[in-house]
Amino acid sequence: MSEQGSPTPADATKQTLWFDEQVTGLKIIDQTMLPHQLRILSLNSLDEACEAIINMRVRGAPLIGITAAFGVYLALREGSVDLHSACEKLLATRPTAVNLRWALDRVFRHVVALAPAQRCQAALVLARTLLAEDAAACSAIGDHGLALLRELAARKQQAGLAAELNILTHCNAGWLATGAWGTALAPIYKAHQAGLPVHVWVDETRPRNQGASLTAWELGQSGVPHTLIVDNAGGHLMQKGLVDICLVGSDRTTANGDVCNKVGTYLKALAAFDNGVPFYAALPVSTIDFEIHDGVRDIPIEERSAQEVTHVSGLADDGKLHTVRLCPPGTRVSNVGFDVTPARLVTGLITEKGVFTASVQGLAEIRSSL
Amino acid sequence: MSEQGSPTPADATKQTLWFDEQVTGLKIIDQTMLPHQLRILSLNSLDEACEAIINMRVRGAPLIGITAAFGVYLALREGSVDLHSACEKLLATRPTAVNLRWALDRVFRHVVALAPAQRCQAALVLARTLLAEDAAACSAIGDHGLALLRELAARKQQAGLAAELNILTHCNAGWLATGAWGTALAPIYKAHQAGLPVHVWVDETRPRNQGASLTAWELGQSGVPHTLIVDNAGGHLMQKGLVDICLVGSDRTTANGDVCNKVGTYLKALAAFDNGVPFYAALPVSTIDFEIHDGVRDIPIEERSAQEVTHVSGLADDGKLHTVRLCPPGTRVSNVGFDVTPARLVTGLITEKGVFTASVQGLAEIRSSL
Repeated sequence: MSEQGSPTPADATKQTLWFDEQVTGLKIIDQTMLPHQLRILSLNSLDEACEAIINMRVRGAPLIGITAAFGVYLALREGSVDLHSACEKLLATRPTAVNLRWALDRVFRHVVALAPAQRCQAALVLARTLLAEDAAACSAIGDHGLALLRELAARKQQAGLAAELNILTHCNAGWLATGAWGTALAPIYKAHQAGLPVHVWVDETRPRNQGASLTAWELGQSGVPHTLIVDNAGGHLMQKGLVDICLVGSDRTTANGDVCNKVGTYLKALAAFDNGVPFYAALPVSTIDFEIHDGVRDIPIEERSAQEVTHVSGLADDGKLHTVRLCPPGTRVSNVGFDVTPARLVTGLITEKGVFTASVQGLAEIRSSL
Repeated sequence: MSEQGSPTPADATKQTLWFDEQVTGLKIIDQTMLPHQLRILSLNSLDEACEAIINMRVRGAPLIGITAAFGVYLALREGSVDLHSACEKLLATRPTAVNLRWALDRVFRHVVALAPAQRCQAALVLARTLLAEDAAACSAIGDHGLALLRELAARKQQAGLAAELNILTHCNAGWLATGAWGTALAPIYKAHQAGLPVHVWVDETRPRNQGASLTAWELGQSGVPHTLIVDNAGGHLMQKGLVDICLVGSDRTTANGDVCNKVGTYLKALAAFDNGVPFYAALPVSTIDFEIHDGVRDIPIEERSAQEVTHVSGLADDGKLHTVRLCPPGTRVSNVGFDVTPARLVTGLITEKGVFTASVQGLAEIRSSL
């Protein structure tokens, strides 16, 4: 993996992964360096693709799937590993998000039917298709979500309340996590462009602080008003009537409407339910796992390294990145990456196919639309 | 305020504030340096006492009250400010915890009735009495809580479940926050000493990380098994049956049983309720505000500095403390210090007078026992 100069501003504010025709190489923004440094990396091998996913240089359910698809292309281009082994290796990088499996299944089934000499190029074409499809899906999610936000704004206006729409989000489900636009942030960007007065409460999202480091940066790049809060604060804000809607992403959505997303999402959904605040998950249908009917029981939850909790990295006054320890040395840690929000707490699912209820019926409607 | 050498181990593991006869001075553990350094400070003036409370060198509702009482003594000893002004200045340091007002009221009423020449010594005697009373109250809280934990352990055993009692706590309500023992941690220490197999899930408690830096350190000092988690994780653990009981402190408890505690407590109470996990607040009766009947509406919530959210301090590999920034420069922040858990989510209140329901009736019973 090699480091490159900064992309053009247009690239930097719209896409986190792209295929560079000039060098026939995959480029990504290294998300572990944000917001302190905008570093662009080239991924040139299967191992580099796996490393980027495991170490969360790329993250977010849709983006993981897209990166894995390009990873198959890189593996075939290298020629040192067979198609099946490449897919297995990529599949093992992250266990919770279902897009990884979905994208790899799609690439494998498409490519395995072809003659060996055609596979590499076919994998590249399909990976680029997945990227374009995801960008289009996210744009459609944004449009459906925008309609929802318009309704909410109209209702506030009718009730004589302040026009500003306060939206709480958790983790990062923006363009950094997808082909473009984002999932949960897509309706927000579209609303901001349409002149709706939106304001976003950004959960910092411990332990990796994707809210503080990625969502705050993304929203700032587009001039969307936002306020950073600790993950503990959302309940209080909802009690005080300061949140009009919660919008989050989803790493895996089940056939009964359970939403598996970044750990802590469930706590916000409980607070939303307790305070009558609508709670929506925004997701491309590729994140739906129709095989699972009880998310709390059956979705495998990734356990990540203790260091993510015990240590924090950031920019010090000397202009350098430092990693500091927060707790006594040797402290035992548990670090689950995700939790499952039961469907009963989810007001609706915003997909590229429209908005559906988080229920067996809603998911059946989505399935029949595919 | 002057820095001193380390205290004896017995001091260090039992008390965070004491009056040193040798130098007739107030000593505290500087909690902003834990767990990285055990630094003892002497507080010698009203200003130093105020600074220590404002900057959270001492924190925790009971300890704030005790420190303020000693602060009145220090003010009278200096002689540069009158009794009323000293109390006003101390009262303004932190708005949410009610012990501050309670302790200052008690000292003021006692001292104002005396001849000026007697006031200074009387304030010292009363401050030391408050310290001893709080230590005794916390010990009694520990005993009542221990009975509760024994019952819970017996019920687990009858149900054929693993003997280990998994207790989730938020923030630090241990001996660092009180005269001795702690409130929420007192039952845990007593259970550990009694041989009950306890294990504590320690919420790191953003933004100031009192769980990671103080509770993990305290429990480690006493050899109590514990696991550090991010604040986002508790809901998942409860869904998976890995929490038997939640035990938290309280900075202010209302006449109807609402519990105001460190921000994020409400989210854990919601998760506990959703999963049938008992949720208890442990508190000396001095934290009860019988004047307030709706905590969500009427308790003033302290808004603290943005820097607590945007920056984190910890120990780097070079052995030095560094402060690092986590978000883009100039990010807007909201940082409320507390939230209110409605009484309906609280299983009970563990006080030095016994265990009561979090209800108008329960609080009336406490009041009649005073």
